[in-house]
Amino acid sequence: MIRIAEIEVDPRQLAAYTALLAEEIAASVQIEPGVVMLHAVAHRGEPHHIRILEVYASRGDYEAHLQTSHFLKYKQGTADMVTALRLVDVDPILLAAKPGSC
Amino acid sequence: MIRIAEIEVDPRQLAAYTALLAEEIAASVQIEPGVVMLHAVAHRGEPHHIRILEVYASRGDYEAHLQTSHFLKYKQGTADMVTALRLVDVDPILLAAKPGSC
Repeated sequence: MIRIAEIEVDPRQLAAYTALLAEEIAASVQIEPGVVMLHAVAHRGEPHHIRILEVYASRGDYEAHLQTSHFLKYKQGTADMVTALRLVDVDPILLAAKPGSC
Repeated sequence: MIRIAEIEVDPRQLAAYTALLAEEIAASVQIEPGVVMLHAVAHRGEPHHIRILEVYASRGDYEAHLQTSHFLKYKQGTADMVTALRLVDVDPILLAAKPGSC
């Protein structure tokens, strides 16, 4: 299951948001067998515009992810920081990365 | 150097476009030391809306990529298929993938 999250954050709270997001991503990929990749980037010049490419091994793995303590900490901790959220379901054409890059 | 390419393709030529894109991505990641990852996805329900997360080791590696025969084949071969192209410079927050997933 693959998705792009398109997120806008209150610019005044961007540093706090980014810290919570990075903590949540690191924990998810490290702990959860079904979280394949989470690649979060910010638009240059508009760093409160964030995109995350999310790859889960299955929909069940995604649903389990939503129940983890690290995800709930992120979700609750950032609720007042996120001003817009759009979740875009996508299908892979080709996901290719250099061996050893992850 | 990281970028998101936002591409719209003529729906009637989508299969041909996708084949050329996948060939180009596979060659780039396999042959070019400075192409770290190219993750191409299509919006579900609107598969002619394509997004590519592009990670190069450096700007020089990206500029070298533009001169490769496989990139030029893609660029020239798809020139009449692409109806819109937006290249968005982004900065990493965190790129995290499961070890062994690439």
